[in-house]
Amino acid sequence: MDINKQNHPFDTATQLNRKSGIYYGHTSERYANMVGPFGGVIAATLLRAVMEHPERKGEPVALTINYAAPVSDGDFNIKATPARTNRSTQHWFIKLCQDKGIIITGTAVFAIRRETWSSTEMKFPHVPNVEEVKSFPSEGMPPWVHNYDMKFVQGPLLAISQPSTKDTSDSVTLQWIRDEPRRPIDFLSLAAMCDAFFPRIYVRRKQMVPIGTVSLTIYFHIDSEALTEHGYKEVLGHARALQFRDGFFDQTAEMWSPEGELLATTSQLVYYKE
Amino acid sequence: MDINKQNHPFDTATQLNRKSGIYYGHTSERYANMVGPFGGVIAATLLRAVMEHPERKGEPVALTINYAAPVSDGDFNIKATPARTNRSTQHWFIKLCQDKGIIITGTAVFAIRRETWSSTEMKFPHVPNVEEVKSFPSEGMPPWVHNYDMKFVQGPLLAISQPSTKDTSDSVTLQWIRDEPRRPIDFLSLAAMCDAFFPRIYVRRKQMVPIGTVSLTIYFHIDSEALTEHGYKEVLGHARALQFRDGFFDQTAEMWSPEGELLATTSQLVYYKE
Repeated sequence: MDINKQNHPFDTATQLNRKSGIYYGHTSERYANMVGPFGGVIAATLLRAVMEHPERKGEPVALTINYAAPVSDGDFNIKATPARTNRSTQHWFIKLCQDKGIIITGTAVFAIRRETWSSTEMKFPHVPNVEEVKSFPSEGMPPWVHNYDMKFVQGPLLAISQPSTKDTSDSVTLQWIRDEPRRPIDFLSLAAMCDAFFPRIYVRRKQMVPIGTVSLTIYFHIDSEALTEHGYKEVLGHARALQFRDGFFDQTAEMWSPEGELLATTSQLVYYKE
Repeated sequence: MDINKQNHPFDTATQLNRKSGIYYGHTSERYANMVGPFGGVIAATLLRAVMEHPERKGEPVALTINYAAPVSDGDFNIKATPARTNRSTQHWFIKLCQDKGIIITGTAVFAIRRETWSSTEMKFPHVPNVEEVKSFPSEGMPPWVHNYDMKFVQGPLLAISQPSTKDTSDSVTLQWIRDEPRRPIDFLSLAAMCDAFFPRIYVRRKQMVPIGTVSLTIYFHIDSEALTEHGYKEVLGHARALQFRDGFFDQTAEMWSPEGELLATTSQLVYYKE
């Protein structure tokens, strides 16, 4: 799949211009969050810098992005450095800088996959088909949300459907998600969707508190051929937190195709203020 | 906890000498694996380089280590670079080099924690007390295994206790683990224990195939005070794979104290050859 051929707000938002080995980009108003840009689109932009690098070999299998400081609206530049290239794997250091220095650090592992014995051990969740679930109304939400069609099966933002003032439920979310307007999936949009869950603490506590993702890791379990087959279809995201403790909570999630293919698994550590 | 005060083979194995800002170390025969050193002790050594760095602020909350090439037995050097220091968080790039260039890439996030509303959502597994479980016999195992007392509650290496020639079971492991001889836990030994599960594919397929961890991520959920309280006690590790596909599988795990404190959560992506 040639990522340059897509013509969607997402592609504009992650667009980079290479000059002397540095990738220059600009935050997109359409993917703005409450403050600064949506972190998922920024993670996708760092991945794109590697994808477009002339020395890139293979396809992404692991990506870690650490949000060291808030990304300001405006220009940024990304430097992707191949740390080591092997026969079938390649390792990258990545950093995103703005005027105030390094804003994001990251690493990526790319690989050339070969067919082997395979098995999906995790069970596909019991969910209604995507057509049977209502879209989440994005009115009043930050701009980035309007670029997704989200359908909550369980655990919506602030758990509105399970009104309760008590803090007794869990933080599990099950959501169908796709780009709005539709766009054929690729590694970049899948990476962004991995970060498109509302913060677990909002779901769990049914209130908003200041939060910020500190570190995001994504394991891609499929190749570009599987993504091409997936095309315009929705992805089922299943996320939960295992622990909230002293200012940090984790989130782990699986990203499924409607046919039960496990496309990606992801985890993140999120800072929160009580 | 002053990590320099411990006097254990683990401390010798992770020992570093700083010269002109570079940390020099040497692989330990006692922590050798079948080929090269045990990856967990190497991850701990990279973390130690940050812990001992004079500019280090706070305690580790997130660590990602990417194994770009096999570590050869012998000398290595580690460079830990503070990418950004904020008021309460600090971000690091880390790399380990040998003669053949960059062998490992990594990033770490350190933070100063504050007490907040907290909640452990994951349930502590139903397990027998550590005294009621037999130690795994380490005879015939690679040297590193002899430095741990492992007690399998479920899913031992090659799933010996559930003999079956069929490939029908799951890859879940529940194991009590501690350093042998006993050593008070710290972030370094906890990091190593996060990688001390036998590869999921051995458990699942009841056979050994060539494997290698490609990327390892650890989220530390506790501070050094909690670890000091934990002291010499065992840790309960709970690991599983969600998917094996085309040469890579994931492993996610939780690390618990016997009292049900969630100390760390970890994930890794592992290369395998059929």
